[in-house]
Formats: sequence, structure tokens, C-alpha cells
Amino acid sequence: MSVKFVGNVSQRFVDVLKSGDAVFVVVIGTTDTSLIPGITIAGASPELTHYTPAADVEFLIDGKCYVIPTPPVTPDGKPTPALISRACILLTKIPTIVVNSGCRVLPNIPYIDLRGMPGRDIRTGNALDIEVCRRIFHNAINVGKFLGSNFDIVILGESIPAGTTTAMAIMVALGFNAWGRVSSASPNNPIELKCRVVREAIRRAGVEVFEDPLQAVSAVGDPVHIALAGLTIGIVDSGCRVLLAGGTQMCAVVSILRKLDFNLDPEFLEIATTRWLVYDRQSDMIGLLSEIWNNYALLISEFSLSESKYPGLKAYDEGFVKEGVGMGGMLVTTLLRGFSKSEILSKVEEEYEKIFKSVPSE
Amino acid sequence: MSVKFVGNVSQRFVDVLKSGDAVFVVVIGTTDTSLIPGITIAGASPELTHYTPAADVEFLIDGKCYVIPTPPVTPDGKPTPALISRACILLTKIPTIVVNSGCRVLPNIPYIDLRGMPGRDIRTGNALDIEVCRRIFHNAINVGKFLGSNFDIVILGESIPAGTTTAMAIMVALGFNAWGRVSSASPNNPIELKCRVVREAIRRAGVEVFEDPLQAVSAVGDPVHIALAGLTIGIVDSGCRVLLAGGTQMCAVVSILRKLDFNLDPEFLEIATTRWLVYDRQSDMIGLLSEIWNNYALLISEFSLSESKYPGLKAYDEGFVKEGVGMGGMLVTTLLRGFSKSEILSKVEEEYEKIFKSVPSE
Repeated sequence: MSVKFVGNVSQRFVDVLKSGDAVFVVVIGTTDTSLIPGITIAGASPELTHYTPAADVEFLIDGKCYVIPTPPVTPDGKPTPALISRACILLTKIPTIVVNSGCRVLPNIPYIDLRGMPGRDIRTGNALDIEVCRRIFHNAINVGKFLGSNFDIVILGESIPAGTTTAMAIMVALGFNAWGRVSSASPNNPIELKCRVVREAIRRAGVEVFEDPLQAVSAVGDPVHIALAGLTIGIVDSGCRVLLAGGTQMCAVVSILRKLDFNLDPEFLEIATTRWLVYDRQSDMIGLLSEIWNNYALLISEFSLSESKYPGLKAYDEGFVKEGVGMGGMLVTTLLRGFSKSEILSKVEEEYEKIFKSVPSE
Repeated sequence: MSVKFVGNVSQRFVDVLKSGDAVFVVVIGTTDTSLIPGITIAGASPELTHYTPAADVEFLIDGKCYVIPTPPVTPDGKPTPALISRACILLTKIPTIVVNSGCRVLPNIPYIDLRGMPGRDIRTGNALDIEVCRRIFHNAINVGKFLGSNFDIVILGESIPAGTTTAMAIMVALGFNAWGRVSSASPNNPIELKCRVVREAIRRAGVEVFEDPLQAVSAVGDPVHIALAGLTIGIVDSGCRVLLAGGTQMCAVVSILRKLDFNLDPEFLEIATTRWLVYDRQSDMIGLLSEIWNNYALLISEFSLSESKYPGLKAYDEGFVKEGVGMGGMLVTTLLRGFSKSEILSKVEEEYEKIFKSVPSE
């Protein structure tokens, strides 16, 4: 089987994902929390993590990067998940647009700007001023309405280094037990460090559990998750469907929506991710999701890279990367639209080869 | 009659405009050319013209402004054309999105960013570095493809103070006789001043006629017109139609397209403007257009504000404003979609009244 359905997956939703008019939206942003050494491997150094979202979407859209000289691939050749999502876009021809919720480094491709700001280090100060948080949310709802009035389904992905840490902080601040349950791009999830950062952030904020999700995000969150929540509200308000394409970070989006009393209806909202993330034993996507949304619907891509001829790609099956830039959702969509696993593998390898052709050899 | 057809208007094009899936796109930008005293009345002072595009689209989308304390209305009560376009959006429910090609002051609403830059004063230096000009053009084509793949027709409007002056400069630099033929938001078109500025710009650039339209725009243009040309190319490339919603500035867009050997086919590209602009005796829209595009198709809105109860609105029939923020194109579209002139007038007056209710009385 190519796609596994868990929970209350709606057949009508799947039909729309299979053949409806879809758009892929990638929300980018940064948080200075990513500068904490060891918290993320989404960048060759802590400082370079600020370039990752911009480089990810430049690569996704144009197949090359402008803000950094080479495409986002680790020194030992493990590429950004944007590569897999790009292969899916090329196969399905689903139109794609980037939304900037607040980035320190801006991409040199077009994007929809929400007039947000980059998030601060959640240990040392509020992530976002409350008025900035409200503006991102308000503008995201309006963009969501615009997108929702023109498509049948919107696939929402994200790129924000250290996003699992701020996601954990958001969920904890909203009263959910997210401690140590979020995922990581590394096979060695730095769970202890993440928990310590979240504890420090919550202590600094001076509130254990927030009633208002916007206050929680303003205190210990980041621009991306509140943007995703606003987009979802606007899209569904227009009668359109949303596929949240991501891992444990999307649980944080659902936690915000739940606290806003949004109707979490699997007819209109489902989540999709990868097998790499769901079957990871160092995180607990399904447990976390069940706690936040008892009626959840989850689509899992069973696509694997274990048979790739490239070690950099096989690494995905060894616990590296796992999710990001909408990879899981785009894989699920591409599989449901009738492309075989081997067709996807070929396209991924073709795009991977182009990276190395474009990099001058030493 | 509500809409007048001039030139090679295509019935199929009109049918799509009547009932197709439409989107309204407003391209904003600034040029420091607007700081020349007397060149434009699109702002209470030369410095404030840099706020006008941002304020226009904030008002268009949200019905209020954030970058300036009160909505864009002159001290004696003549409102921005964004008011009329907003009334048309409210009636037709056509989704609307803003594209930023390069603004000194950014709006606090969402927009698609083309990674451009504000234009410099064309008398004193190149308007845009050539790589910035190329990036705007490249990114606009991609955004155009995105929009074109999702709609049947795109209505393209603009807001750039002093845009008629840079439009004249672009057309002259491409070898067309645009001297003194462009329009003005003022009933007293400062034609002499505009011609002097264009002459200075052309002299400074050191080239009489440019072969490459991107070089011409880089030298004596601005970010908005090249963005509109790129968007048009991308949209039509996706099999979608474009209505250029504007006055003599849209002639500059057509001049760029013509020099790029773009197929100017009225089946896919037409222009719409207002009666206020076309019948103005201080400019020559039809003469200019005929010179650039012998096969042109022009739709003219016959909507008038002479019967309004408000002097600020009646001023439109006395030669003020005339065009901008896609007003003519949105009026044509709204009329073709079956709304009567009196329905439009009521909605315009309703929105006009809200401006004064929102302004604290002195």
C-alpha cells in the first residue's frame, strides 16, 4: 500500500485530494531559538539555520538557490526535504506558492508576505510582540480566504529550523502534554535540550497555561505556526479543504485551532506526513495528535528511499530529515494521484543529480 | 450603454470577463520621481506620495489604512480611486491580491512580493539596477504563471504616483511618440513638467532609443510597469486572459510587451479604462495606444459620478483622479457582470460615508 489511513479519514476528502484543484503553500519563518547550539541540524551551523527556509523555497520553486551558493544539502550529501517536494510538484504539476510569516533571510523568489517578524529566542524574551502575532494571524486568515475561494484543497507545508521546539512550547503552553514527544531532523533527537529550552521559556513567560492561543504564541511560539492556523481558518471559512503537510509541528497548529474553538472536522481538515516520522521511536506523533484531537485523520506516505542508489537519499530511511517543506503531504498527494513509488524515486534522483552537477567539484 | 467597445474587442474575451473565474491583482510600487514638486497630486505632499500605494491597497482590501492615520482622501474630500475599485470588489466578490514590485512604504496587509526595489528619480540616476529589473521581470512571470493556471482572467491594476511620467519615459525610450500624451490625476495635467523630466532622464541615460525593453526600464522606468509586463507574459503563457486595468500607463506596458515580441492578441489581452480618462482632452490614450498596438482592444466604462450627492465624488466628473488602482477595469467588469450604474453609485457612496465616519471630527 502506498498511503496508509489512520483515524477518521474521510473518503470525500481523499477524493478531493486525488482529483480536485489543489495548491501547495509553504509557510516560511525563522526563530532565534534555532541559534541554540545542538537544537537543530537544519543548517550547517546555528547561524546558517536562518538561511534554510529561504534556501528551501528557492530550491523548491526554481531548482537552485540564491541566498546561499549551493543548494541546501548537508556536507555528507543529505538533501533538504524540499528536493522530494520539488519532485512531487514536477510530477503532479500542482501550483505552488510561498508565504513568508517572518524570516531573517528573505528568499529571492516571489512570496506572499504576511507582514510578520522573525521570532525571538523563546528563552530570553517573548517570541513575537502581541500586535505582530495578531497581524500575522489576521493577514493569514485573509490570505486563506483568497486561496480558499479559488481552490478545492490547499496543502500547507512549512520550513522553520527549531520549529519542533517552538511547537512543543506552544502545545505545553496550551496545556497539552507535549513534553519530549516532538520529532527531529536528526536520528538523535536532542529531546533533553528541547525540554530544557521549553521549560526555560515557560518559566520566563511567567504563565504555566495560557487561555488565549495568540498570547501563548506571542510568548513562546514563532511566526510560522500562528500563520498556519490563520491560513487554515481562512481556507476552511471559504468552503475549501486543508491538508496540513507536516509532522509534530502540525500538532501545534491543531492545538492552536482547538483552543480557538475551531471546528476540527476531518471532512475539511486532515494531516499528512511520512512513514519516517510516524514510525520514529524518538517521537510520538500519533499519541500527541490523539491527545489534542480525538477525531483526527492522518494520511501516511509509505514511500521509502531505501532502494535509492545514493547514500545521501538512503539516509532518509536511516532517520535523517524525516519531514519538512510539506514533504509528507506532497508524497501522499502524488501517490494518491496515481504516480508509482518508482516514478517518484526516479524524479527525486534526477533532481538530486542536478544538485551535484550544479556544484563545482573541488 | 454602460461599457463601450473600441478597436478589436473579442466577444469571447468579453464573455470570459462576464462570467469567468476572475482575480483582481493590484501591482504597487514607488518611484522617487514622484518627489518632484508638482508632478503628481497622488499624495498631499511630495513626501507623502511614497505612502499612497500602501494606503491605497490597505484601503482596497481592509477598508481602512494602517500606514497613514486616515484613508487616502484629499483635504477637500476627493477620495482615492481605490474607493471605487473597493465598491466593485464588494459587489462582484472578485478575489483580490496585491503584488509589491518595489515600494518605499510597505502596506500592512498581505501581498505577493517580487523582490524588487523602489525606483530612483529618473533624472538623476538609473531607475533600477539591471539585475533588479531582471529579477522583478523573472519573478513576475512566475507569479503570472501561478495566477494564470488558476483563473480564467486576471484583471491587472496599478498604483504608483508619478507613474504616468515614468510611463512616458519608457515609451519614448522604446521609440514611441508619447510626448505629452499621458494622463494625469489632476484636471491641470503638468505636461510641460513631465516632458522636461523625461527629456532630462533620456539625456542622462545617454541613449535615445533602447533595443532591449529591460534596459529601457532599468534606465528611465520604474518597478511597476516591468512587473505588469512580466505578469502578463506569465498569465497568457498559462492560457489565461489579461485585462490591463488602467489608462496611459498601460500603453507603456503594451510598449514593453511589443518590444519583447510578445504576441499582442486581443483574444487574450485587452485594456479597460474609464470615460474620465479616454475623453480627457489633455491626454491621448487612444492615439497613443493605436501607435503602439494597431490591433488594440479597449473597453471603456461609461459609469459617471456626476449624480452623486457628494462633491468629493462629483469631482471625478470634473477631471480629478480619472484612473488608478484598477478602477476602470473593475467598473467595466462590474457593469458587464450585470450590476447597474445606480447599484455601483450606492455602494461607492456607502463606502465613502464610512471614510468620514471613521475620521474623528475636529
